[in-house]
Amino acid sequence: MGRVAGHPFLLILFLFSIAITPSIALPKIKHYKWEVEYMFWSPDCVENIVMGINGQFPGPTIRANVGDTVVVELTNKLHTEGVVIHWHGILQRGSPWADGTASISQCAINPGETFTYRFVVDKAGTFFYHGHLGMQRSAGLYGSLIVDPEEGKNEPFHYDEEINLLLSDWWHQSVHKQEVGLSSNPMRWIGEPQTILINGRGQFNCSIAAKYHSGSKPCALKGGEQCAPFIMHVHPNKTVRIRISSTTALASLNFAIGNHQLLVVEADGNYVQPFRTSDIDIYSGESYSVLITTDQNPSENYWVSIGVRARRPNTPPGLTLLNYLPNSPAKLPILPPPETPDWEDFDRSKNFTFRIFSTMSSPKPPTRFDRRIFLLNTQNRLNGFTKWAINNVSLALPPTPYLGAMKYRLKTAFNQNPPPENFPSNYSIDIPPPNPNTTIGNGVYRFKLGETVDVILQNANMLNPNTSEIHPWHLHGHDFWVLGYGDGKFSTAVHGRKLNLKNPPLRNTVVIFPNGWTAIRFVADNPGVWAFHCHIEPHLHMGMGVVFAEGVEKVGRIPKKALACGVTAKALMKNPINPKP
Amino acid sequence: MGRVAGHPFLLILFLFSIAITPSIALPKIKHYKWEVEYMFWSPDCVENIVMGINGQFPGPTIRANVGDTVVVELTNKLHTEGVVIHWHGILQRGSPWADGTASISQCAINPGETFTYRFVVDKAGTFFYHGHLGMQRSAGLYGSLIVDPEEGKNEPFHYDEEINLLLSDWWHQSVHKQEVGLSSNPMRWIGEPQTILINGRGQFNCSIAAKYHSGSKPCALKGGEQCAPFIMHVHPNKTVRIRISSTTALASLNFAIGNHQLLVVEADGNYVQPFRTSDIDIYSGESYSVLITTDQNPSENYWVSIGVRARRPNTPPGLTLLNYLPNSPAKLPILPPPETPDWEDFDRSKNFTFRIFSTMSSPKPPTRFDRRIFLLNTQNRLNGFTKWAINNVSLALPPTPYLGAMKYRLKTAFNQNPPPENFPSNYSIDIPPPNPNTTIGNGVYRFKLGETVDVILQNANMLNPNTSEIHPWHLHGHDFWVLGYGDGKFSTAVHGRKLNLKNPPLRNTVVIFPNGWTAIRFVADNPGVWAFHCHIEPHLHMGMGVVFAEGVEKVGRIPKKALACGVTAKALMKNPINPKP
Repeated sequence: MGRVAGHPFLLILFLFSIAITPSIALPKIKHYKWEVEYMFWSPDCVENIVMGINGQFPGPTIRANVGDTVVVELTNKLHTEGVVIHWHGILQRGSPWADGTASISQCAINPGETFTYRFVVDKAGTFFYHGHLGMQRSAGLYGSLIVDPEEGKNEPFHYDEEINLLLSDWWHQSVHKQEVGLSSNPMRWIGEPQTILINGRGQFNCSIAAKYHSGSKPCALKGGEQCAPFIMHVHPNKTVRIRISSTTALASLNFAIGNHQLLVVEADGNYVQPFRTSDIDIYSGESYSVLITTDQNPSENYWVSIGVRARRPNTPPGLTLLNYLPNSPAKLPILPPPETPDWEDFDRSKNFTFRIFSTMSSPKPPTRFDRRIFLLNTQNRLNGFTKWAINNVSLALPPTPYLGAMKYRLKTAFNQNPPPENFPSNYSIDIPPPNPNTTIGNGVYRFKLGETVDVILQNANMLNPNTSEIHPWHLHGHDFWVLGYGDGKFSTAVHGRKLNLKNPPLRNTVVIFPNGWTAIRFVADNPGVWAFHCHIEPHLHMGMGVVFAEGVEKVGRIPKKALACGVTAKALMKNPINPKP
Repeated sequence: MGRVAGHPFLLILFLFSIAITPSIALPKIKHYKWEVEYMFWSPDCVENIVMGINGQFPGPTIRANVGDTVVVELTNKLHTEGVVIHWHGILQRGSPWADGTASISQCAINPGETFTYRFVVDKAGTFFYHGHLGMQRSAGLYGSLIVDPEEGKNEPFHYDEEINLLLSDWWHQSVHKQEVGLSSNPMRWIGEPQTILINGRGQFNCSIAAKYHSGSKPCALKGGEQCAPFIMHVHPNKTVRIRISSTTALASLNFAIGNHQLLVVEADGNYVQPFRTSDIDIYSGESYSVLITTDQNPSENYWVSIGVRARRPNTPPGLTLLNYLPNSPAKLPILPPPETPDWEDFDRSKNFTFRIFSTMSSPKPPTRFDRRIFLLNTQNRLNGFTKWAINNVSLALPPTPYLGAMKYRLKTAFNQNPPPENFPSNYSIDIPPPNPNTTIGNGVYRFKLGETVDVILQNANMLNPNTSEIHPWHLHGHDFWVLGYGDGKFSTAVHGRKLNLKNPPLRNTVVIFPNGWTAIRFVADNPGVWAFHCHIEPHLHMGMGVVFAEGVEKVGRIPKKALACGVTAKALMKNPINPKP
């Protein structure tokens, strides 16, 4: 359209063609003005401070159609903290500076300043946004971003009603204290969350399902409380699309609805081969759409239960109701809420995860890779501090964002040596690291523009014997194909040829199971610098991430504000001299 | 010396003159490398997080001689917050960019970045440093800065021993929550501090003087605790200089030592006409030196008590011991600690304050002023929020620091209209503001370089009837002469000719008493932009300050890092274009 606009005749022809084609709508600009600030809030009936946007928690939902341009003028109303917002799952083609990752795509927005994010949403799906500086996501800086197909176009499945759920976990201890604890020697772990929030709402120290559980206190909610449950209102005998995203700081969740099967149709903004399941596991950074049919007894309501998996839970399930209208939502179901599967039944989790495949019409992966890198995930020590490391490098982000530093070739901004692409072949993933010491680094994996990259994520034993945890890895700027999973150590000879090139699901987040591996493939065709990291926020805080880059020389104009810090500011600023009188 | 260095012969002569003049030492460079970070600490035996420097709380003491250059390379190790450090009482002649006030003298230092402060200390005295962004001072970012006379030169009084006390107040609620409360509608006041700290040490919920007070719990300190009292060790029959600075966020303090009179000799880094007193009042931002003679029974120790004045106290006095060596510090005094005078006995406070005069040899003020501005201090409302305002303008600092914005004449950075220099003559200071609504502003009072400025600080009634509070006003970049104080409204006709031009004390901080006025005079001869504000941190947070500027066109090179934000960054950065391949 840029070329067309430059030629008056073609422009007229183009506009005319739109006028006579009513089924195609012009892309819109969705303009938002947001102010981020801490505010008193009671997400789980206990007053605390949360990061809100325009006085709301969670932040406002963005809703746009494919092809629209989203513009968010973000003003930082915090007193001392910087802020950025990452648009999780949006590929940012042509706008890598808008990815909202501090130290990577832009300088953090200083208190009192405004930064304008501007990006095109080019794919329908269930997305969300969140802070990406320190642990501001955990502090409550998140919201939903839903992209519908272009106007006049349909999803490849039918539904009558829609409900959107953004799941998160909540601590009573401030993230500031949590950050200090994680960075202390000895490290103090943040522990399990106090509460699971559904659209920012949960109940601490009381349960809306207390009548089914002796010992739990019933909630004395009058309605209207910030912690009153988000009730899912549906009509009987309809197909309902439920969008479910997880922006938890830590918790892996399981989602189930009493009496209702779920038909999974979307994962991370990509359609998947529909399959039926009683419940889904959802890891931090993932999103799903499921369809349900409201064909149960219409005079009843049904429990929705969201419990913790993959870590020994110490958090009651988040609960709400599927409310068959016109029943009162106060009418509690006859049966108790669905039981969350045992937290350490990883076989069950794998069974679910391994059922996810792409639809027939989804793009297929290149059959060959140009480059394959292996990333060993270990927990380590550094001078008594606890770290997570990848190939024995624990990521410490530099103060100058990579994108500007690479574009302007400022080599002091970060270590110019690339980090290791592999780990010793004799490394045993079933025992604690024999040498627990790690190193700190901020080097970049640089890809040739357009090359096909395989990443083998290799999980391992932690510092304590017989411990290994799941990690959901999230890639910025790309979707990737999940070519396979396995237990133990990946072997090119054994597993390399068995990878799924037929119908691997496209995702932006994928889990590695304890002591297992996960293989992904993507095409490095999006000029920019892109974080790839464990989406568990305290793990990232402790160094569990890497930085990818490709085609930075092709990146167009970067807004000055994204560059106005660190060595990019220094290099691009004229020598301050006295102005002429 | 700059000129001398340019001429070889004179340089040799100069160096030779130093070699044969052993009493004059060359100025030194005092170089410090500091890292600021939050850390777990128990300032009052209750664990919390504090802002520490190099793992210490309070931060390291800087000690230098007049003429020395202090260089502090400050690295921000916070995760999401900017940081700056203000060198309270240092005039920063020739280095206004090193004043350490966010939004005024420099861009806040971003996480991970280092900024180098470099300034000459040109006057002996008792100073301190502290954070000047948000409420980071209250979070614990402070330490002492002691300037001795040039080597070989003496103070104008004799002493054998020296003790340095930095006083502060401490809350258990995080400053992040405090900031949210102050900025909320309705405002939530921070309340009185939990504990008074002496050199960062206090005791909550227990008392080292419990045996004298039924009902208070004795402290079970083993020694070595972070909250163990800072014992003042002295030898009998000596003259001891006690330096006392207050960096409280809120509390006005009273300092007394059992059985010992205090001889006041210094205030805010200026010698004063020595006078004897049983106790001193010290407001936030002030410093004093007092001499004591350890001529009491040498087999005893004596209480040091620091209580709250000027606000209804809800904080036990800070306590420690004057320990006559070689007595054990565990030997408690016979008598109970000195009683803090009644908090609202303002006549007593005035009696003390009005006794402070300059020494004969101190510089005298110009006999005439070129300009006199009146600053009415009021508490106000703004759309339901509570504010403090000066001439009905509540200061909201802009994101771009004034110093760079004014030097580079970037007029969008702040309101170019100067704020009002007066208030309506019929304003009644004894009743709540008839129209409580205020306005927000960020204009600057601009002075001609070298002009003599009088400021009449006029206190007034707050929002509630019959309430007026003290405010200690602190001026950056200058000392000022305190020409007088009075109750009620200042009248030029009545009070204007009675001001003290004979021996007014030079200070950098001065109090206004409830419903009273204070008159100060200074010469605007220091090119730069300078904050003048209430040193009560939550009051400043709520807008209680103004900005002065003079001779900014004479300011020399400002480090790029001080300018790398806001509109200065934008204006000074080249248009980011692709580098040549």
